[in-house]
Amino acid sequence: MLAQARARDAADPLREYRAHFALPEGVIYLDGNSLGVLPKATAGRMAGVVRGEWGEGLIRSWNSADWIGLPRRVGGRIAPLVGAAPDTVIACDSTSINLFKLIAAALAMRPGRKVVLSEPGNFPTDLYMIAGLEAQGLAERRLAPRDRIADALDGDVALLLLTHVHYKTGEVFDMAALTRAAHEAGALVLWDLSHSAGAIPVELDGCGADFAVGCGYKYLNGGPGAPAFAYVAQRHHAALEQPLTGWMGHAAPFAFSDDYQPAPGVGRLLCGTPPILGLSALEVGVDLVAEIGIERLAAKSRALSEFFRTCLDQAGVALELVSPPDPMQRGSQLSFRHPEAYAICQALIARGVIGDFRDPDILRFGFAPAYVSFEDVAEAVRHLAEVLETGEWQRDEFRERAAVT
Amino acid sequence: MLAQARARDAADPLREYRAHFALPEGVIYLDGNSLGVLPKATAGRMAGVVRGEWGEGLIRSWNSADWIGLPRRVGGRIAPLVGAAPDTVIACDSTSINLFKLIAAALAMRPGRKVVLSEPGNFPTDLYMIAGLEAQGLAERRLAPRDRIADALDGDVALLLLTHVHYKTGEVFDMAALTRAAHEAGALVLWDLSHSAGAIPVELDGCGADFAVGCGYKYLNGGPGAPAFAYVAQRHHAALEQPLTGWMGHAAPFAFSDDYQPAPGVGRLLCGTPPILGLSALEVGVDLVAEIGIERLAAKSRALSEFFRTCLDQAGVALELVSPPDPMQRGSQLSFRHPEAYAICQALIARGVIGDFRDPDILRFGFAPAYVSFEDVAEAVRHLAEVLETGEWQRDEFRERAAVT
Repeated sequence: MLAQARARDAADPLREYRAHFALPEGVIYLDGNSLGVLPKATAGRMAGVVRGEWGEGLIRSWNSADWIGLPRRVGGRIAPLVGAAPDTVIACDSTSINLFKLIAAALAMRPGRKVVLSEPGNFPTDLYMIAGLEAQGLAERRLAPRDRIADALDGDVALLLLTHVHYKTGEVFDMAALTRAAHEAGALVLWDLSHSAGAIPVELDGCGADFAVGCGYKYLNGGPGAPAFAYVAQRHHAALEQPLTGWMGHAAPFAFSDDYQPAPGVGRLLCGTPPILGLSALEVGVDLVAEIGIERLAAKSRALSEFFRTCLDQAGVALELVSPPDPMQRGSQLSFRHPEAYAICQALIARGVIGDFRDPDILRFGFAPAYVSFEDVAEAVRHLAEVLETGEWQRDEFRERAAVT
Repeated sequence: MLAQARARDAADPLREYRAHFALPEGVIYLDGNSLGVLPKATAGRMAGVVRGEWGEGLIRSWNSADWIGLPRRVGGRIAPLVGAAPDTVIACDSTSINLFKLIAAALAMRPGRKVVLSEPGNFPTDLYMIAGLEAQGLAERRLAPRDRIADALDGDVALLLLTHVHYKTGEVFDMAALTRAAHEAGALVLWDLSHSAGAIPVELDGCGADFAVGCGYKYLNGGPGAPAFAYVAQRHHAALEQPLTGWMGHAAPFAFSDDYQPAPGVGRLLCGTPPILGLSALEVGVDLVAEIGIERLAAKSRALSEFFRTCLDQAGVALELVSPPDPMQRGSQLSFRHPEAYAICQALIARGVIGDFRDPDILRFGFAPAYVSFEDVAEAVRHLAEVLETGEWQRDEFRERAAVT
């Protein structure tokens, strides 16, 4: 496997980009994807922001370093990665907060309809943010299994909220078809792109999507708890009303008036003062992904995950695949079901192979195409085969649950 | 003035702390307070978080570096600065977002009442977040001038929302008296401590306050757009329901269940994934302020602002003071009204004296007691007197408004 892997790496058009990431010694990072690797340029950028922009520039940096423009600037760089026009994306707050804004905005645009439709087993925060509006009496949460979503789109549905790539299985929804189905039912659509952005091609404008949100700390390499992003289709900009009407979303924040007037376009999605440290780190990660380009990333992602499966076959490892076998039908990950997934994951981490576990029984491997190599994949499979063969995952230390799993 | 200032500095018990801050060469920083100065320790901490915790530790740092505990840990350090029990404060999101959570929570605790009472001219985001809930049909915003607030507390008022130290004038509300008045009217109280925390003593528990929010980037020196904090009195923990029910506020976030169950205590105020870079920087700033202690900070703050007024007198500068003349009645700032406040502020900045302007005619000087010296004050007044005497503020370059004022 190793020779084959090395040959693939030598032929990989993205091989030079691995050097742009600070991969720790002795680690094979197949986290899938809870936190992208640190781009090497980020440390220097952060030192510059901290010592220079904050330390030396102080409040002057809102103008001189264009801190005030950061949310729109980073959003504009994310836009082409998700098939969106530049002025339709903004970087701000968290995915959860952005979900709240856009679910509420959609409900306001569909008076008389209260249902927000999603699927059971969607990423929890998506479901919880609907529940938050439900507790306010403003929404009604309806869940339908993914093969029944089209049937559940009736005249009560204001919004269809789906995660494009499922966080556990990696399964991809047909964005174009479901967006069309929702629109035919008179509903709007909000796509959560947390496991898509920077990993697989997305065509928000092309599919006629209404809204989207996504995460900055996964394939965009923005760092732990990085700011998220939000998309609003151009045609909705004028009508958009969201309830988190903080001062930075005001048309003239520094006029300090008592009454709220929304900023034009996606600027009205801003709420509080933008997190400059987090946005600066995110900008570095996004720039790197944008430089590589999403088509090349997606092609390598598919090659990596297919190679992982080839290696499993060659190593004689039989694990129950819960991701779609067709690489065009899944995100940049492979997930397997095993009753001892947690302990196996821990045993792999002890060997320096970092994948992740998702409760209760999912072992997830992600293939961040910007920095994962084919050799990483071959070596990870070798370790996985050894962990399963030796049964070393049975040690007590690997079964004790940490606070964060 | 200078000799007097130097004598005061020599006798200042906090003089050693100035060396803990990275004050830029040639700058007198009397920003009042839009952004606290960089603590010297922050640069090292951020490099460690970026290169070590993120770069080397990757997802393992959620456990090994206790990223998951950061919001509660930083909140626990802020608590004594605002007179709160340790488990009643958490660091998260922005002040605006935290206002939304707690206004909504208060409304849910006072069914049948919809009015949120505040004052005109409160910091805009406080008023706008009420407006956001008003647009949702859940709140009714009522504004009463500060001398009429007690009269406006009728049986429709669910919540009194006030900013403890006014951002423009520095005037301080009597927290104990207004909290009592609100409670007598059956209302709850939410205090915005953005210009109080780290500058003047606050007794949230002692005053019987219900809720509070505050900013991390002013006197807590957390950096540009730092995470904010939120306080909930212990007696409300069990009943607290807020609508931004993200996965990190769940009792068991890593169980990934479809249904939301709030975490115990202030943990349920968390929403999305915590911003680790911002929280780490904030922790350094808070630790420094906590080490100095709020009583010593407040005493020096009063001495500095009184010395500023003495220097003005000695320099023969007559400016209209809009802050209360009694230092016990104001926050750590002095504000003056002048029709050319913007241009004067810009002329001072050109001389290295950074105060700030607040639309339309306020010139504001803040006295962050942890690092501002008496010599800073004397020198700032000398520059101010020269700017006014020479009329150099009349230059065109000082009248052109920047994006951020």
